[in-house]
Amino acid sequence: MVKQERAVRTRRALVRAGAEVFAREGFVAASLSAISRQAGVSNGALHFHFESKRALAEAVESEALDVVRQVVREAATREVRPLAVLVEATYGLVGRLADDVVVRAGFVLGSDPGRGAMPAPRREWQRWVEETMRRAGREGWLARGVSPEDAAAAVVAATTGFQVLGGEQRTWLSRERVAGFWDLLLPRLTEHARGRTTVGLHTGGVGARTGSAHDVVAAGQRKPART
Amino acid sequence: MVKQERAVRTRRALVRAGAEVFAREGFVAASLSAISRQAGVSNGALHFHFESKRALAEAVESEALDVVRQVVREAATREVRPLAVLVEATYGLVGRLADDVVVRAGFVLGSDPGRGAMPAPRREWQRWVEETMRRAGREGWLARGVSPEDAAAAVVAATTGFQVLGGEQRTWLSRERVAGFWDLLLPRLTEHARGRTTVGLHTGGVGARTGSAHDVVAAGQRKPART
Repeated sequence: MVKQERAVRTRRALVRAGAEVFAREGFVAASLSAISRQAGVSNGALHFHFESKRALAEAVESEALDVVRQVVREAATREVRPLAVLVEATYGLVGRLADDVVVRAGFVLGSDPGRGAMPAPRREWQRWVEETMRRAGREGWLARGVSPEDAAAAVVAATTGFQVLGGEQRTWLSRERVAGFWDLLLPRLTEHARGRTTVGLHTGGVGARTGSAHDVVAAGQRKPART
Repeated sequence: MVKQERAVRTRRALVRAGAEVFAREGFVAASLSAISRQAGVSNGALHFHFESKRALAEAVESEALDVVRQVVREAATREVRPLAVLVEATYGLVGRLADDVVVRAGFVLGSDPGRGAMPAPRREWQRWVEETMRRAGREGWLARGVSPEDAAAAVVAATTGFQVLGGEQRTWLSRERVAGFWDLLLPRLTEHARGRTTVGLHTGGVGARTGSAHDVVAAGQRKPART
């Protein structure tokens, strides 16, 4: 039992060390011995858990994918209306990217030309944003003339930009950046009109409601067909 | 003279081949012999022009940087008002990214962990967008309450997203994508109000004015302090 716990802890340390080395040096240049050194374990222990560098990279990616799924699930428990869920999820994602090197590395690894293919976490995020924005359209939350496809593309492009630029300058992964973005986009998505029915959509997300300056509300939104 | 022309042509072929191999395999994995093979020249010829892989990568980056400067210069000759220049320049940039592997590779190379540092073309683009958005703010082109910093960040993040996602799925580098983005952002930047003073800002950019469906105009913009 104790042995198993130790194995779980070693595996976790290896995934984290792998993410750090991949993020710093890239998949191709990263050496397994640098990774085991960083994790403080022997090469043998690394090979016991991962048969190859590729297998370790897949573990990093898979953990980042789990985080994406967790972020959107959490957002959906805090909010009901699709646009509010979307806003909340972008804060969640950017926060996890800022805090966790495994998430940062997982978003980058698949597009490392040495490995090919679009990274799974990014693909999953894109799929979910598109699906949620289509639902917002179907349920009547989007302003007339706003295409769910364009709206989803803007959100996916901007969050991808935050993620990529955040790898270079950490300020791109701040709540203020995300708030500034929603502050510009959300009123247009919901056909904002000052002074009309406030439906309580906050560009600052749930966390920001207590204290942040970015609790601008989007108003003038049409009643949804159903909730 | 003929010899010099041939040298120029060989150098150009090498930069292009380098961009292709870097884009496909990444900086670390790219081999000089794969690049000379791709360019159809000898290893000796490659070494005559570039003393190292790093020198070749710098040439690719430097060419992409020139393209960024050219794109913003061209946009500024076609348009005067800062927001129109910005819209035009994003079409120019995305178009060049779609058409030219040297630009695509140049935008990615610097952030290849094997080389480190933010790529020069991306940095230059960010600097120019920020400067132009500040000018838009100073000259009274932005709606009340819109922060030039937030607006610039949204444009930089989205265009970075187009660039990165476009490396994986080429549809992200289409005029329709860019038009869809401006269609959502521009009305908010200029405090769009249907039916009010049309100032003729087209989300479709200059090219789209003849024929595209995306010539939505942003109206209700305040008069600028000066032009």
